[in-house]
Amino acid sequence: MIDAVVGIDIGGTTTEFGVVDRKGKCLKANSINTRQYTDLEEYLKCMHLEIQNIINSIYKDINIKGIGVGAPNANHFRGTIENAPNLNWKGSVPFVKKLKRYFPGWPVALTNDANAAALGEMFYGGAKNMKDFVVITLGTGLGSAFVVNGQLVYGHNGLAGELGHVNVKHNGRLCRCGNRGCLETYVSATGIRRTFFNLLRTGSAKSSLSGVGFQKITSEMIYEAAVKKDRLALEAFNITGEILGRKLADVTAITDPEAIFLLGGLAQAGNLIFNPTRNAMEKNLFPIFRGKIKILPSKLKRDSAAVLGAAALAWQNRD
Amino acid sequence: MIDAVVGIDIGGTTTEFGVVDRKGKCLKANSINTRQYTDLEEYLKCMHLEIQNIINSIYKDINIKGIGVGAPNANHFRGTIENAPNLNWKGSVPFVKKLKRYFPGWPVALTNDANAAALGEMFYGGAKNMKDFVVITLGTGLGSAFVVNGQLVYGHNGLAGELGHVNVKHNGRLCRCGNRGCLETYVSATGIRRTFFNLLRTGSAKSSLSGVGFQKITSEMIYEAAVKKDRLALEAFNITGEILGRKLADVTAITDPEAIFLLGGLAQAGNLIFNPTRNAMEKNLFPIFRGKIKILPSKLKRDSAAVLGAAALAWQNRD
Repeated sequence: MIDAVVGIDIGGTTTEFGVVDRKGKCLKANSINTRQYTDLEEYLKCMHLEIQNIINSIYKDINIKGIGVGAPNANHFRGTIENAPNLNWKGSVPFVKKLKRYFPGWPVALTNDANAAALGEMFYGGAKNMKDFVVITLGTGLGSAFVVNGQLVYGHNGLAGELGHVNVKHNGRLCRCGNRGCLETYVSATGIRRTFFNLLRTGSAKSSLSGVGFQKITSEMIYEAAVKKDRLALEAFNITGEILGRKLADVTAITDPEAIFLLGGLAQAGNLIFNPTRNAMEKNLFPIFRGKIKILPSKLKRDSAAVLGAAALAWQNRD
Repeated sequence: MIDAVVGIDIGGTTTEFGVVDRKGKCLKANSINTRQYTDLEEYLKCMHLEIQNIINSIYKDINIKGIGVGAPNANHFRGTIENAPNLNWKGSVPFVKKLKRYFPGWPVALTNDANAAALGEMFYGGAKNMKDFVVITLGTGLGSAFVVNGQLVYGHNGLAGELGHVNVKHNGRLCRCGNRGCLETYVSATGIRRTFFNLLRTGSAKSSLSGVGFQKITSEMIYEAAVKKDRLALEAFNITGEILGRKLADVTAITDPEAIFLLGGLAQAGNLIFNPTRNAMEKNLFPIFRGKIKILPSKLKRDSAAVLGAAALAWQNRD
């Protein structure tokens, strides 16, 4: 008999789930398409079936200790997913309550995707022996999670970690939240596209992407152009890293972390984003912090990180 | 027999100390002049004598359980006071180690003054039932302390809470830390003086303080002028509150506190500083936080707050 948990990561496109043992070994995993289910009950029914299937397909006897779920706009305290712009289910969804009906008797915990990523890093990744660290996820938006004294910072309303919405520029770029100048309008896959487009419009240098329409330019294409030394693409990465690094200097002044992890699509660009970020942070740090703060990539494999994070939440919920 | 602790608050000018019981009642207090002691041992000797005197002068039998010390630039982890610009003792002073020699057998804990203020507020003041809150001290500089899950945030190096050194303006005002544009160069007693002086130099309106030299203008004089509806003095308070409020919106996005307490000299200006701060914070908040975050004054009496904070640290150190 092996003790294990189920980790579920809900993304806008795909929902991934896996059965994970105490040591972070994913015994079996699968996924369903999130977008095809406009009806939440249909989605839960299908997920329940698929999870039962993978549990039954494992050759050993499995004792499931609980379920952990990572999702965008999740509220850990309330067990709800609230107004997630990339999901089909609108308003405040009592996700934990509904999921429990399909898995009676199993403890279910829910948290937002950045928090789940931080727990994954803390249980199984690069933050194993750390008590104070920050995780930044650079995807369509910018997510963040803060760990202090070995605990996730949830805050009074369960809404902490909205670093994507600190202000970079007064009356700056319009953000989907309604405010102007939020960090994620500059530092995210969407943000670097906006920066690159501005450079295309106003820049002195030519770019290999000059002839491509804005809507067709992805952050991956900017990355590929930068690898080929496209000057405007490189400049877009430098500007993005410069803005992020300056904010990480502020984050350090407040929380004094041992390390800051950069995760998600944009972080895959490696030194193109890490170098300008590190340089700008170091330059803007309150002097006593200089040389003390590490900016690191994830130590988890990209294809299993989200499920491992959700699994870590399930284990933590048992302890 | 009454259990009590000794709380010591070291300021640049005065060192205050008192004997405080479990409920936060200050049984007896006194102070010495910090500045007159260039030699640390002389200072400790005198303080030891005075503390013994007040303990002996209390009519009941007192069982001292420990000492708590709040001081500028204190490192809680190391028990040191490090390069405090307003104290006579330069370099890194092993304060706890030295103080213990005078009070053998008594546990001694040290923390910086903003952290001590937060503990005082949490044990005896307005944060009694709060687990997540922020304290901002507006004195010569800007100090801050963050409480998360009921615990002070010390960070990895014991240096967390340097909100005074987050950036407000790229290439802004020169700060004593060497960087430019730090929050405390705008929001502090010194900051409002710099703002007021800029307004005097460039402002369109006249001020009752126009004839007074810059070096002679204090933040108290600006306050008094503002109370009398001096337009430039009012504008200085509005600008200061606006900058602070915007930063508190960022602080909220990161930590989601129940309340933010404004303490110290500048906070004594009441609505002159609280109103523009509240308005600017609310306007710049990530929408989900609007209407949820309180900005509050201290609930402790100003003359005993610092000693009570240090006493709270001593009690916490025993628990």
